Amino acid sequence: MNREELIFQIKKKQSFLCIGLDSDIDKIPKHLLEFEDPIFEFNKQIIDSTKNMCVAYKPNIAFYESLGSKGWDSLQNTLEYIPNDIFTIADAKRGDIGNTTNKYACTFFKHMNFDAVTVSPYMGSDSITPFLDFKNKWAIILALTSNQGSLDFQNFKNKKEKPLFKKVIETSKDLGNINNIMFVVGATKGEQLLEIRQIIPNHFLLVPGVGAQGGSLKDVAKYAMNSDCGILVNSSRSIIYSGSGIDFAEKAALEAEKLQQKMSLILSELAF
Amino acid sequence: MNREELIFQIKKKQSFLCIGLDSDIDKIPKHLLEFEDPIFEFNKQIIDSTKNMCVAYKPNIAFYESLGSKGWDSLQNTLEYIPNDIFTIADAKRGDIGNTTNKYACTFFKHMNFDAVTVSPYMGSDSITPFLDFKNKWAIILALTSNQGSLDFQNFKNKKEKPLFKKVIETSKDLGNINNIMFVVGATKGEQLLEIRQIIPNHFLLVPGVGAQGGSLKDVAKYAMNSDCGILVNSSRSIIYSGSGIDFAEKAALEAEKLQQKMSLILSELAF
Repeated sequence: MNREELIFQIKKKQSFLCIGLDSDIDKIPKHLLEFEDPIFEFNKQIIDSTKNMCVAYKPNIAFYESLGSKGWDSLQNTLEYIPNDIFTIADAKRGDIGNTTNKYACTFFKHMNFDAVTVSPYMGSDSITPFLDFKNKWAIILALTSNQGSLDFQNFKNKKEKPLFKKVIETSKDLGNINNIMFVVGATKGEQLLEIRQIIPNHFLLVPGVGAQGGSLKDVAKYAMNSDCGILVNSSRSIIYSGSGIDFAEKAALEAEKLQQKMSLILSELAF
Repeated sequence: MNREELIFQIKKKQSFLCIGLDSDIDKIPKHLLEFEDPIFEFNKQIIDSTKNMCVAYKPNIAFYESLGSKGWDSLQNTLEYIPNDIFTIADAKRGDIGNTTNKYACTFFKHMNFDAVTVSPYMGSDSITPFLDFKNKWAIILALTSNQGSLDFQNFKNKKEKPLFKKVIETSKDLGNINNIMFVVGATKGEQLLEIRQIIPNHFLLVPGVGAQGGSLKDVAKYAMNSDCGILVNSSRSIIYSGSGIDFAEKAALEAEKLQQKMSLILSELAF
């Protein structure tokens, strides 16, 4: 999916919600374990009930990989089930030397047809560029994450007080363009979003950390939105695990709808 | 495998060679494509012919993952075929927030029974510690890699001229100990190895970049070995792709033997 289509979907659905399919065999409702492919059945019902409220789905690959080859089948089935007008992100955080990264890119873009992959930048440019060689595909580069340990290295500062995450953004943005690169930027501090927008005013940002991790949707919108919307806000567990009974998918839909309605209000205030 | 056993194997085999099983379906000898599982057949023959010359095998997961669920079966079959007295490394370069990283750790340590996993440290401490909760298992943390773009961020320096890779080593070493943490340290500059040894005199280092990428085995030994040997030197393509005919495994064995003999000489000079 290209940038224009993504923006079109955001306008049409009045939503910039990304739902994280962190579908954990130990956490899904117990009655699903009777199905041949419980993880796919869980995702299928979540997708059926939430697809009108979100513009993106983001399976975190760890949960599928941990089930071995069966998990990869569940992932493939899930990806094929997601409607074509929804943006798909493989949250894989991959990164290796050039020829090896190319293999990862082929995995997620050619064999599985995801729209985007999250990329860990530690190994530098040649761990990123192979993801940029595919038309209408995206690398979503980790910049400032929202986890507890994120500042251990991402906030390592040079003599001009520039933190590593800004260096990553500055260097990486020039490897591609606003049509094939996004950045992961956590929502825990609004001012940081503002500083990041000074470096990359036009890139899309994938924003985790709203809700459970303390970030405010209003602040994210205030500090990080641009004239194309420019943000995808992710929510995973607070949506997909809001229920644990037969009606888990309906409960997930209610949570997704709450967020979508807040987003709709924010977008309508901007006449988007 | 624990540290003592690894050191015992190094002494016994007079080798600190790690062979990278970067087994690429596009690069393996064409006659293997007739087998039901060509990647496993390739690995099986490589293992049969080189197992006496090396102390570790390191499949790079990208090459298996790119084949989907079938690739994961090849990986599982390969792992089960590797003799128990050889150290196994999943070169996966994983790293995510805590609960997700735990899933990656379970994948490689519980479901697949690897001895070690390579870990990308960008997301900080909680992307590393879940790998340290498994007895006799290892996290091998990327510090200074040997690829072209490695210095883009790993050499980002603070006001005291300390590069990021040293900060990563200093912070990470205290998360575990010499029995569950190793570091990836490229062999391209001998002096850097010396500086790193000042921070972590006793940890094992996994050293790529010898040979093709310009590092010298003699320099690596000179600057990075400690009294327990303390290094595993990796070679992948120059061994496994040294032949492309029916006799590919014999040619691989010859290349592995050349390296093992150089290592044996180095070890015997140290009376190891």
